[in-house]
Amino acid sequence: MGFEPSARAQELIDRVDEFIRTEIEPVEGELHAAHRAADDPWQPLPAFKELQAKARKQGLWNLFLPPAEPGNEVYGEGLANLDYAPIAELTGRSFVAPYVFNCNAPDTGNMEVLLRYGTPEQKKRWLEPLLDGAIRSAFCMTEPDVASSDATNMAATAIPDGDEIVLNGRKWWSTGVGHPDCELLIFMGLTDPDAHRYARHTMVLVPRGTPGVKVERLLPAMGRYDEPYGHGEVSFTEVRVPASNVLVGLGRAFGIAQGRLGPGRVHHCMRLIGLAEKSLELALKRGTSRTAFGKQLVNLGGNRERIADVRIAINQARLLVLQTAWLLDTKGLAGALSEVSQIKVAVPRMAQDVIDMAIQLHGGGGLSDDFPLAGAWTSARALRLADGPDEVHRGVIAKVELAKYQ
Amino acid sequence: MGFEPSARAQELIDRVDEFIRTEIEPVEGELHAAHRAADDPWQPLPAFKELQAKARKQGLWNLFLPPAEPGNEVYGEGLANLDYAPIAELTGRSFVAPYVFNCNAPDTGNMEVLLRYGTPEQKKRWLEPLLDGAIRSAFCMTEPDVASSDATNMAATAIPDGDEIVLNGRKWWSTGVGHPDCELLIFMGLTDPDAHRYARHTMVLVPRGTPGVKVERLLPAMGRYDEPYGHGEVSFTEVRVPASNVLVGLGRAFGIAQGRLGPGRVHHCMRLIGLAEKSLELALKRGTSRTAFGKQLVNLGGNRERIADVRIAINQARLLVLQTAWLLDTKGLAGALSEVSQIKVAVPRMAQDVIDMAIQLHGGGGLSDDFPLAGAWTSARALRLADGPDEVHRGVIAKVELAKYQ
Amino acid sequence: MGFEPSARAQELIDRVDEFIRTEIEPVEGELHAAHRAADDPWQPLPAFKELQAKARKQGLWNLFLPPAEPGNEVYGEGLANLDYAPIAELTGRSFVAPYVFNCNAPDTGNMEVLLRYGTPEQKKRWLEPLLDGAIRSAFCMTEPDVASSDATNMAATAIPDGDEIVLNGRKWWSTGVGHPDCELLIFMGLTDPDAHRYARHTMVLVPRGTPGVKVERLLPAMGRYDEPYGHGEVSFTEVRVPASNVLVGLGRAFGIAQGRLGPGRVHHCMRLIGLAEKSLELALKRGTSRTAFGKQLVNLGGNRERIADVRIAINQARLLVLQTAWLLDTKGLAGALSEVSQIKVAVPRMAQDVIDMAIQLHGGGGLSDDFPLAGAWTSARALRLADGPDEVHRGVIAKVELAKYQ
Amino acid sequence: MGFEPSARAQELIDRVDEFIRTEIEPVEGELHAAHRAADDPWQPLPAFKELQAKARKQGLWNLFLPPAEPGNEVYGEGLANLDYAPIAELTGRSFVAPYVFNCNAPDTGNMEVLLRYGTPEQKKRWLEPLLDGAIRSAFCMTEPDVASSDATNMAATAIPDGDEIVLNGRKWWSTGVGHPDCELLIFMGLTDPDAHRYARHTMVLVPRGTPGVKVERLLPAMGRYDEPYGHGEVSFTEVRVPASNVLVGLGRAFGIAQGRLGPGRVHHCMRLIGLAEKSLELALKRGTSRTAFGKQLVNLGGNRERIADVRIAINQARLLVLQTAWLLDTKGLAGALSEVSQIKVAVPRMAQDVIDMAIQLHGGGGLSDDFPLAGAWTSARALRLADGPDEVHRGVIAKVELAKYQ
Repeated sequence: MGFEPSARAQELIDRVDEFIRTEIEPVEGELHAAHRAADDPWQPLPAFKELQAKARKQGLWNLFLPPAEPGNEVYGEGLANLDYAPIAELTGRSFVAPYVFNCNAPDTGNMEVLLRYGTPEQKKRWLEPLLDGAIRSAFCMTEPDVASSDATNMAATAIPDGDEIVLNGRKWWSTGVGHPDCELLIFMGLTDPDAHRYARHTMVLVPRGTPGVKVERLLPAMGRYDEPYGHGEVSFTEVRVPASNVLVGLGRAFGIAQGRLGPGRVHHCMRLIGLAEKSLELALKRGTSRTAFGKQLVNLGGNRERIADVRIAINQARLLVLQTAWLLDTKGLAGALSEVSQIKVAVPRMAQDVIDMAIQLHGGGGLSDDFPLAGAWTSARALRLADGPDEVHRGVIAKVELAKYQ
Repeated sequence: MGFEPSARAQELIDRVDEFIRTEIEPVEGELHAAHRAADDPWQPLPAFKELQAKARKQGLWNLFLPPAEPGNEVYGEGLANLDYAPIAELTGRSFVAPYVFNCNAPDTGNMEVLLRYGTPEQKKRWLEPLLDGAIRSAFCMTEPDVASSDATNMAATAIPDGDEIVLNGRKWWSTGVGHPDCELLIFMGLTDPDAHRYARHTMVLVPRGTPGVKVERLLPAMGRYDEPYGHGEVSFTEVRVPASNVLVGLGRAFGIAQGRLGPGRVHHCMRLIGLAEKSLELALKRGTSRTAFGKQLVNLGGNRERIADVRIAINQARLLVLQTAWLLDTKGLAGALSEVSQIKVAVPRMAQDVIDMAIQLHGGGGLSDDFPLAGAWTSARALRLADGPDEVHRGVIAKVELAKYQ
Repeated sequence: MGFEPSARAQELIDRVDEFIRTEIEPVEGELHAAHRAADDPWQPLPAFKELQAKARKQGLWNLFLPPAEPGNEVYGEGLANLDYAPIAELTGRSFVAPYVFNCNAPDTGNMEVLLRYGTPEQKKRWLEPLLDGAIRSAFCMTEPDVASSDATNMAATAIPDGDEIVLNGRKWWSTGVGHPDCELLIFMGLTDPDAHRYARHTMVLVPRGTPGVKVERLLPAMGRYDEPYGHGEVSFTEVRVPASNVLVGLGRAFGIAQGRLGPGRVHHCMRLIGLAEKSLELALKRGTSRTAFGKQLVNLGGNRERIADVRIAINQARLLVLQTAWLLDTKGLAGALSEVSQIKVAVPRMAQDVIDMAIQLHGGGGLSDDFPLAGAWTSARALRLADGPDEVHRGVIAKVELAKYQ
Repeated sequence: MGFEPSARAQELIDRVDEFIRTEIEPVEGELHAAHRAADDPWQPLPAFKELQAKARKQGLWNLFLPPAEPGNEVYGEGLANLDYAPIAELTGRSFVAPYVFNCNAPDTGNMEVLLRYGTPEQKKRWLEPLLDGAIRSAFCMTEPDVASSDATNMAATAIPDGDEIVLNGRKWWSTGVGHPDCELLIFMGLTDPDAHRYARHTMVLVPRGTPGVKVERLLPAMGRYDEPYGHGEVSFTEVRVPASNVLVGLGRAFGIAQGRLGPGRVHHCMRLIGLAEKSLELALKRGTSRTAFGKQLVNLGGNRERIADVRIAINQARLLVLQTAWLLDTKGLAGALSEVSQIKVAVPRMAQDVIDMAIQLHGGGGLSDDFPLAGAWTSARALRLADGPDEVHRGVIAKVELAKYQ
């Protein structure tokens, strides 16, 4: 690979790989089965915390944390994006791994926000227990009643009232809100509709138990509730929190969201690449272990051509994400604006197609939960909408392109 | 439309349309919600039987039944494929409608098999209650342990033993087996491994309660159990039924399966076309009722182009199915061999893509169950594997094409 | 086929088929070679006129002519669109056939315009020799200096001046203008920029030799000049013709263009379907007559799957065109507005892809002119722009679709 | 870019860029027009030699030459593949540039073969004048009568006879053979049909004027003859050359061909990436300088989305080629086997689609030769067959992939 991680990162990558192969993969099927069989799927299995403890003990914990910046002490390894990317790919091969290493969305993004924008008090109260894995968090942005692809549409309100700020409105697709440990919601609300388009909204830290916060229901994504994390529809009715819970300041939500999304999209995309690789592996295993019409499945019809196309697609996608990570590391978000959107368009689509092909090669088994493919497909499909639909990102890319000519 | 249904069929089509618009669509959302909220989703809602009774009273019942053939009395309206196709399209717009009219798979296919191949006794015992809606049935063909795309791979056995026939093996994706009214399983098993490739297997009628029949588990398809019908994995352990339960004769399974599949594929495909139309309607409604970046969603980016492409794709697919129905009616299965495979390849792929587009235009809502799109997508995707994967059908089409040159 | 031609049409179809198989196909390769070897490729070969004479003698002449309408005597067989469509498909298999039967664009469209909109004097002077094959014609609409996809952009002028009308401006892609027999140009010019968007332009009949008409150059389309017809860039400088050469009246160009395009698009599309069928035939012949890696080419990699996909694509496209022809026949252009655009989008794209696949299966030969594939590809590609680019037609389709909801 | 060229290469890249922008692009249109207007397009324009002289004087000459290897003195800059790749991309933006810098196929590949496998005498006689630009060469491998995608099919013969070797057979697509300076043909022929599949063929250096060598005709590729280079069909009839003209030894052709193809494919692909970038630039310029329906073309329909998709596609393709170059540099051909095939599949397809999109945005102009797009499309399309068709390369990729599992 031309985008080489640092020696220190390589050592961590190898250890994460080893951990996943020896500690996670052998028990993962069992864990899923136990979870499915549990009386209450919204209670995480204890085995899970044990894996976390083991990973943490080995120093494989919070590896997503970025390098130190001015006024921003280092809590973790401080890996560059290009260094962390191969780790994200590895964890993406498993639905369990991101959590085991405390590197799962949306907690990672929320921790980054707190790290970068939190006051010392906010960090103490929320960031530290999150880094500890003691609590979990959710991000409350998208709304059911407006086209949330245009973030300026957000209609839920965050209105200062003396020492407090009052929140009203309804959010949905607040991932993680179903987990019993979820204690923090980051809420984005409209404060000043007359301000500049990108200065109207405010981000507020909301303790899960604040009166007026209600999880109205948990939403299935393509039929799956993704217990025990879940995707919540959450109403906020006259929710009052201290003004000190505001992040950065009134009307500053857009800047914060921007900063949160660059590395987050690299993480999402690298995990999907891991998932696509895993799916290709499964397809090759199935395709070489079963026969029909007197041939191995891989030797029937266009299967070999599809395998070749999938290999090309994964490799191209990975290189684009690594290139984006490298740009983020060397030129910052402003220098990677188009690329961050490029990976967001290219990678979920690629993963969706790769997984679809793997499902097809598995026959009926591919549709079942005997293989992780059906679930994987949903992850990829959902990411064509989450964090901005493909169409919005295409718009960003075209805008950057056209800026050279207009 | 150039493929005009008969006047009699048109009258039925209009009445089915009216029934769906006035009796089903207004309550469908509610019914789904009630079903989701029920303690036991495997118990069908009573509202459902009431709708069936109402439809039956109006003569909208068993409309799928084919015209009379020699030795095959008429039980229903006896509509030609081209006449029934528009009805199938209408019922496909709703997940409930096919059942309301007693026109749902796999019961329709099973009833056709009994109608065409059953002895008077077999008809009396199984066909009549099925036509009555009093019982339900399942089809046990696909197996978990072999690539079932090659039907000659089927390894479960059906061995004659005196006046009985003994069944052993394991089947999966036996749809409908989870329903409390399911009383008949049609089982396909290997009888004579030394016979000609297409003369090895036998079809047997198996009462659901026969000792040795066990539903090992119900399988989720892309995360959904499709209660109260379900897709079962069923083990057969020394299951004994009278030799008179054999369909047609030993080694005759392939011929029966063939006859079952032609019209069945037309039905499946027309239902998917209804689903695609419904999805386009939903996309247009959503796209014209929401705004982002100051425009209706339909007026953003490539959305209008996608709408146009979807309209073309649906129209082309419908014409191909109608053409196939017309061929089946006028030239029989032998004259529509390639076309039956053509629709099986073209229509589910088309429907999958159309629904995916509609999901995307719905944003997060499209992934939820607030709209029928997520479920619709699974139906279309599953049909790229059910009744033979795309690749096998492409093989048939190419074979017919090449036969002209070799 | 569900869209059956009339018995009379079927008889003509059979005779056209026979003529092409016995009179054209056996000599076509030779004719092309002779034409390529000729000193002046802009001189048509005499063999060509002989074929025309033979076809005409058999009554296979001007078959494209529509049935009589009020005030519109019948000059030919008066076939309905659905009747003529299979003939257009057959002629599309050959680059020569459309001309042999006097059924080639743009002369057909120009003849239809004269038939429908010409005065008795205009018909006498231009339509009769065109029907006779004595002269040829061109259509001068698209302009090099404006985006002609928006026909209201046309900037060349047609200004009345007493008994005359004066034309100025520059047109290109005037197909047929290179032919020595070309004597008529139909010119579309701007008359009143202040009139309603669709009432600004006028169509004028211009004798080829009128002073001020100059063919500036002949344009290659994807490298080909398509001699002896050619695609001209034509300048009009103070060109004066009598006011009686105006078609219908000042400002009436759009209505005329509309009427011209419906059947014309059916013809174009059916010819492309013939070309796609021919390409598939060639692919199958090549693929079964050559071997690599020990197998017939058709049995390598994904070739059989591609053949199946091509068969599906051609069949779907043909049905859509036949359906459109049927709509034009039964409901007129207003009842087929979306469908005419649908075929214009779907068929050239399909043909382009089918031909590309056939080229690929021919290896280097496919790129050469030893097979008609390379030329066929250009025909299909050009039609994604000619008569309105895909994007404009998608816009029409979406507009019709959205009209149901807005 | 994460794949950084060396500082020395960067300096050359900048100078090549400057040379193309100041010396080539301003005159390129004119040169093409002059060439088209010339009496004999098979005579190169003198302007051309002048540009070569100027480039050579500036040291921008033979930059493709690889670093020294044991027994292989350095003739040029000795750039690594990763260093030369950006130069190849720049030259690909122009049809003239590769020749101006003496870096055009097939001469580059032929020079590499001589450099790596030639004897001192062979180098003296052929390599030096080629490096000098004094003569040109062709590569005679593909045959009209067999499926040449399987190179072991090659049936032309190379039979030793005493001190001579005798060649018989027919080759086609021998690019460059039409040029008046072409003096060397590298011929591949069958020597021993009973040897191992990959040890049957021999490569022989054949002076263009040897008796028995006849250019039967020059072939159009998608209608273009690509004068003054041309693609020849060449017959060899009892052609006798000294045995010392054999490259390496009898039966060694496959090894030589392999070594020739790795870097050659990187060059081809990088040139196509340059062509795709150029096409996107033209599309953006056209799309922002013309209006239809009251908007800039880029703002109509799905155009912005297509621009975004094209940007993603080009970036992904470039990264894959750079990665392959890096692998070739660091691990040799054996370490880049799959990747060399991956770029060969991915890049021409990408370029073809990008150019097609640019053509469409140019309307009729895109089909003409007023823009380099129509010619560019042919280059990209041809490369899906040249140097092995896509399908063969997909086979290689799948084989490498499956080797991990079988």
